[in-house]
Amino acid sequence: MPDISKRGQIMPASPIRKLVPFAEAAKKRGTRVFHLNIGQPDIETPKSALDAVRNFPFKVLEYSHSGGNESYRRKLVKYYSSKGIDINYHQIIITTGGSEAILFAFLGCMDAGDEVIIPEPFYANYNGFAVEAGVQVVPVTSYIDSGFALPSPEDFEKAITKKTRAIMICNPNNPTGYLYSRAEWDTLRQLAKKYNLYLFSDEAYREFCYEGTHFSAMQLEGMDENVILLDTISKRYSACGGRIGALVTRNQAVHDTVMKFAQARLSPPSFSQILGEAAVDLPEDYFNTTREEYRKRRDLLVRRLNEMSGVFCPNPGGAFYAMASLPVTDADVFCQWLLESFSYQGSTVMLAPASGFYSTPESGLNEVRLAYVLHCDAIEVAMDVLQAALIEYPDRIPSKNKIELSTH
Amino acid sequence: MPDISKRGQIMPASPIRKLVPFAEAAKKRGTRVFHLNIGQPDIETPKSALDAVRNFPFKVLEYSHSGGNESYRRKLVKYYSSKGIDINYHQIIITTGGSEAILFAFLGCMDAGDEVIIPEPFYANYNGFAVEAGVQVVPVTSYIDSGFALPSPEDFEKAITKKTRAIMICNPNNPTGYLYSRAEWDTLRQLAKKYNLYLFSDEAYREFCYEGTHFSAMQLEGMDENVILLDTISKRYSACGGRIGALVTRNQAVHDTVMKFAQARLSPPSFSQILGEAAVDLPEDYFNTTREEYRKRRDLLVRRLNEMSGVFCPNPGGAFYAMASLPVTDADVFCQWLLESFSYQGSTVMLAPASGFYSTPESGLNEVRLAYVLHCDAIEVAMDVLQAALIEYPDRIPSKNKIELSTH
Repeated sequence: MPDISKRGQIMPASPIRKLVPFAEAAKKRGTRVFHLNIGQPDIETPKSALDAVRNFPFKVLEYSHSGGNESYRRKLVKYYSSKGIDINYHQIIITTGGSEAILFAFLGCMDAGDEVIIPEPFYANYNGFAVEAGVQVVPVTSYIDSGFALPSPEDFEKAITKKTRAIMICNPNNPTGYLYSRAEWDTLRQLAKKYNLYLFSDEAYREFCYEGTHFSAMQLEGMDENVILLDTISKRYSACGGRIGALVTRNQAVHDTVMKFAQARLSPPSFSQILGEAAVDLPEDYFNTTREEYRKRRDLLVRRLNEMSGVFCPNPGGAFYAMASLPVTDADVFCQWLLESFSYQGSTVMLAPASGFYSTPESGLNEVRLAYVLHCDAIEVAMDVLQAALIEYPDRIPSKNKIELSTH
Repeated sequence: MPDISKRGQIMPASPIRKLVPFAEAAKKRGTRVFHLNIGQPDIETPKSALDAVRNFPFKVLEYSHSGGNESYRRKLVKYYSSKGIDINYHQIIITTGGSEAILFAFLGCMDAGDEVIIPEPFYANYNGFAVEAGVQVVPVTSYIDSGFALPSPEDFEKAITKKTRAIMICNPNNPTGYLYSRAEWDTLRQLAKKYNLYLFSDEAYREFCYEGTHFSAMQLEGMDENVILLDTISKRYSACGGRIGALVTRNQAVHDTVMKFAQARLSPPSFSQILGEAAVDLPEDYFNTTREEYRKRRDLLVRRLNEMSGVFCPNPGGAFYAMASLPVTDADVFCQWLLESFSYQGSTVMLAPASGFYSTPESGLNEVRLAYVLHCDAIEVAMDVLQAALIEYPDRIPSKNKIELSTH
């Protein structure tokens, strides 16, 4: 038979989904599984936005403009303006999810063999898009001790080579929840200017900031040629299945190049563009309500985690993720054990081992990512389960270490 | 400013869409433009399928399975079975349009620098996906004189190198409308076996065959490891904006590899999977009705074209395209002239110059593609307009040539 491509062979399987068979087996045994492993929000998609799709008088479900419906792009200008981002609708290309925006940025701004620097831990699927585009992800490590703050300029400079074309930032961060400060953005700005780099800014979680306000890369001065905003409505409106994102840039050459990639795949999905357009008209307090809900969950989750002996969880400033270090030597093994061999009052929890979010081998081995996409009542029970599991886990690190870890 | 990638620079703009500004200008002048240039069907999307979306009780628009909803894939097994294609639902991956199926096949089966042989003229966006995947399209030319039949095995063998990994076929063909015979499929089978090649089969227009029945590459015997079916519901149900396609293969390694690419982009669009699933339940005569409508249009278009002095249009066996040679030296110039400088009774026509469908330079310069996606009444008027244009066109090839061309 013909061979699989080399890139197909090195393409990573989803680290978040690899435990799924164990979760399915647990459910078949009758165990309830609390899913803290994936970023699928439980918040209902706004009814008015769903209704806009239901009531749209489609006769022929036609291709849209390759860059997305003009009416939707014009509406988005209004949305971005409300976030302090000043652009026009010619600077927006609607993509099939944030995923496609990332792929288009990689394809349009980098060639095979080029390098993009990304603070790790980072969203694991960046690796997949890098393999598709043939580009190399170069990690600079951020650490749980500092709450995953931006690595120092020196760390970035050590990572920069002649092949470096871009720095990529997710703000607020998936998986760490870290919200970058204005000062950190200035550092990034200086690096991009000094080394003539693109700055890819993934702002999927813009609406979910709990400490201070969100600062967008699009607000950096003098960076019109460098900044590519990668966006999505998946989390913003709890519309992950809509597969609608956007690539926004004031760099005309990048815009025109990405439009060629957009034309090749014809158009983004029509139904969900209707949804996205209608969602811009949601009342102003819509995000306040969802944000307050997530803030409550975060406060509860972080408090419960830090109350557990041997567990440390820095307080995340945004998104709906928290990273925690556990008193275990290998979180991959622990997470599988939770699904395969443990239950507490008929329940267990599914977590995402952090190793899949690091590019440097052997990093983050004792860390997990928790997505707080469950109601507070469910989070309380899930934390009871995790607490019991850490007591029962046979390979738990002895208590001396526990205490050291918990005094961070 | 940072540079655009080299692949971004060589990425071709859509040859079908490059005349759009001239069409828009014509409309602004008050000229009616008959669009025979794009494959956007005017047939209404089945109401029952649209209603399935409207009535679906979405609360949270969640990610679906990365390979598509299991219920939809199970339904598709039934659909394929009715077409004589025997597969199970584990062999289907739902993609974002046929476009993504093509890209995934290229990424999973070929590496950068590898070659795929495609009979030309071919669907122009194959070039775009080839640039994205870094692979080389190697054309073997088919000719209007034979109605664009498959080139000879010798022509293929001349094109095969050590880097050749696949042959790609579109059946029935876009842009030529050619429907490949069983004997031609046997030729392709022998080539794929002899040279250990993948056979990518784009069957987007499967339902639209007017001469004989459709033969699918999936029906070739002993080719389970070689054949990758690339499919879409865009034309089948007039649902282009849904962006739902499929990659189907019995090759387990290719399936597993493509699933990793599918996981990286999370999931195909949720709304249109509902539409696709409901569409499988359409009454059996659904395709008969649409096929008869297209057949009437084809018969009219081809007759009218061949009645024009100097024009030759072979009778296409399927799809909803026809290729015609015109008594002009440069169809690109003629098509632009139609939009910029001509009208007949207040109307003009927009055609797709064929040059964009050829990879070999200077090929098909006097050919155009016509999509018969208009009602017969409109086709009649559009043909009146084209006939008048060919008489008035100042750079028309003198009548001696006309007669020669029309005696094909």
